[in-house]
Amino acid sequence: MNELEALGYEMRDALNEEMKAVLLSNGRTPDLYYGMMHYHMGWRDRDLGLADVNAGKQIRPVLLLLVCQAAGGDWQKAVPAAAAVELLHNFSLIHDDIEDASPTRRGRETLWQLWGIEQAINAGDAMFALAHLALNRLYDRGVPAERVVRALRRFDETCVRLTQGQHADMDFEKRDRVTVDEYIAMITGKTAVLLSLCAELGALVAGQDDTTIAHYAQYGLDAGLAFQVIDDILGIWGDETLIGKSASTDITTKKKTLPVLYGLEHSADLRQLYTQEETDSAFVQQAVTLLNQTGARDFATTKATAYTQSALGNLEAAHPSGPAYTALNQLTDMLLKRDY
Amino acid sequence: MNELEALGYEMRDALNEEMKAVLLSNGRTPDLYYGMMHYHMGWRDRDLGLADVNAGKQIRPVLLLLVCQAAGGDWQKAVPAAAAVELLHNFSLIHDDIEDASPTRRGRETLWQLWGIEQAINAGDAMFALAHLALNRLYDRGVPAERVVRALRRFDETCVRLTQGQHADMDFEKRDRVTVDEYIAMITGKTAVLLSLCAELGALVAGQDDTTIAHYAQYGLDAGLAFQVIDDILGIWGDETLIGKSASTDITTKKKTLPVLYGLEHSADLRQLYTQEETDSAFVQQAVTLLNQTGARDFATTKATAYTQSALGNLEAAHPSGPAYTALNQLTDMLLKRDY
Repeated sequence: MNELEALGYEMRDALNEEMKAVLLSNGRTPDLYYGMMHYHMGWRDRDLGLADVNAGKQIRPVLLLLVCQAAGGDWQKAVPAAAAVELLHNFSLIHDDIEDASPTRRGRETLWQLWGIEQAINAGDAMFALAHLALNRLYDRGVPAERVVRALRRFDETCVRLTQGQHADMDFEKRDRVTVDEYIAMITGKTAVLLSLCAELGALVAGQDDTTIAHYAQYGLDAGLAFQVIDDILGIWGDETLIGKSASTDITTKKKTLPVLYGLEHSADLRQLYTQEETDSAFVQQAVTLLNQTGARDFATTKATAYTQSALGNLEAAHPSGPAYTALNQLTDMLLKRDY
Repeated sequence: MNELEALGYEMRDALNEEMKAVLLSNGRTPDLYYGMMHYHMGWRDRDLGLADVNAGKQIRPVLLLLVCQAAGGDWQKAVPAAAAVELLHNFSLIHDDIEDASPTRRGRETLWQLWGIEQAINAGDAMFALAHLALNRLYDRGVPAERVVRALRRFDETCVRLTQGQHADMDFEKRDRVTVDEYIAMITGKTAVLLSLCAELGALVAGQDDTTIAHYAQYGLDAGLAFQVIDDILGIWGDETLIGKSASTDITTKKKTLPVLYGLEHSADLRQLYTQEETDSAFVQQAVTLLNQTGARDFATTKATAYTQSALGNLEAAHPSGPAYTALNQLTDMLLKRDY
């Protein structure tokens, strides 16, 4: 077991205990109000019987706790913040599933599929409120009130950015043209700001100074951007056996990812090709050829590398230390050192 | 102009200025993300041109500010809290309109009608986050951090209760039988807790002790319950020319209000009648006769009077003072001294 596995195991245990305390999951059968949330978290099945379903990788809360410890704090003190970001993430999934009309998540039916859109919207709202209550519990663990107020403010400023990202994402689906800059702004909101908040809150609870907090926040932001751009590259040129989905899916669904948007900006032939309804294997082959010709892969790779370098530089500048730093490096490698 | 009109005018001005600051409404044309929210607030039309549409009575924030002043505080300091409860109320309206499939509100099309359910869910989430940021601004006006943390906690505990009330309300529509107790619990969540929060936050910002804060909170809760029960009575026996809608609407729509639920519990004939599909004027007449026979009106009137008495008793026990107290009494009379 390496540092990340060892620390991550202990941290996820504390995280899940905290989330269960906030969501009143105490072994007794919940009413449907809490039951819907417990189902979403994987703690209950659709009949509200006990369940223990994979609840995702919980990378964000673990990163938050590792930063807190590596920044000289006690990660146990930051558990309420870790619970808050994980509940925030789960709230956004409940509403995203409605907005994207997704029938399943993590191999199970989504809330709106089982209980209707109306109750699912409301369950998401409930979890959003409870995420805030989770964060408020920092005060109970001895974090000074000034820092709690600041944490809550950064939490909601991030929520604003998240909803801006989601607004843009839904808007892009209806538009013909989206620029590379608009796309970067969108993924900043949808992905990067939440990872940035995690790193920032970890350092804030550790009691760090503003300069150090800013380095951690920038590390999280750049890591989030690098992660998304690498995902975009692998979605076209990735090794199917490694990424577990057909590498051409992003092309057949005409998904507007970074390489595609760059290609569309620079190749009239690709723009012409993308007006085609049918996306058969000939379409995929031609699209990839055109993307390669425009240098879309190089462009995305250069971006990913730059974000990765900036993330690592900021992490170093924050002067983390101890086994949590080692674990943080392992986590960062897991996210960013993929073969792209 | 009486005290309520004079103070209310000044307070609403400050309230609207604060909400505009939080929602970045600064005279420049907003993007669609903010534009949807500005439209909902009545500041913009559907093409995002400037508008000035009636934005509701804003009773909750005015009550909050009056309590703050009557409790010995400076109402100006509490303006961020007033903005927060008004934005919270408006967030819940955006989602309620989707959940109830309401095509119009305040004489205009609802957000989901104009921009789709997906974007409207997201706009509600955005306003929920911004409501929190509004409350956080208490700190900028010199409210001690400990009180801000407490205000935020009570704010989100109230949001949990609100979503519980909404969950129950939607659940009741699908059920045949709802008890009087279940109904009281539901309106407590849907209506009373928010008014209670307003009174509580006003007293909290004024720096009052816990006993006084509790009296104000109970005053708000009881006033909210009394208001709703009086509405229920007027919905059946009210003077049509005074309440502005047909007094029989609640009967023809078979709405499960307090008198009806009491009647259904105590009259087999009414239960039998309510299995009927058709709700013509004979139905209305017979329903009202049966309700009168079971003593449903007396039951509801007794409840309304008891809640009103408790509200007034708690208000007195909180020892409010000054012109704001006079205005608070005028507001309370306006809400509760209706002819029922």
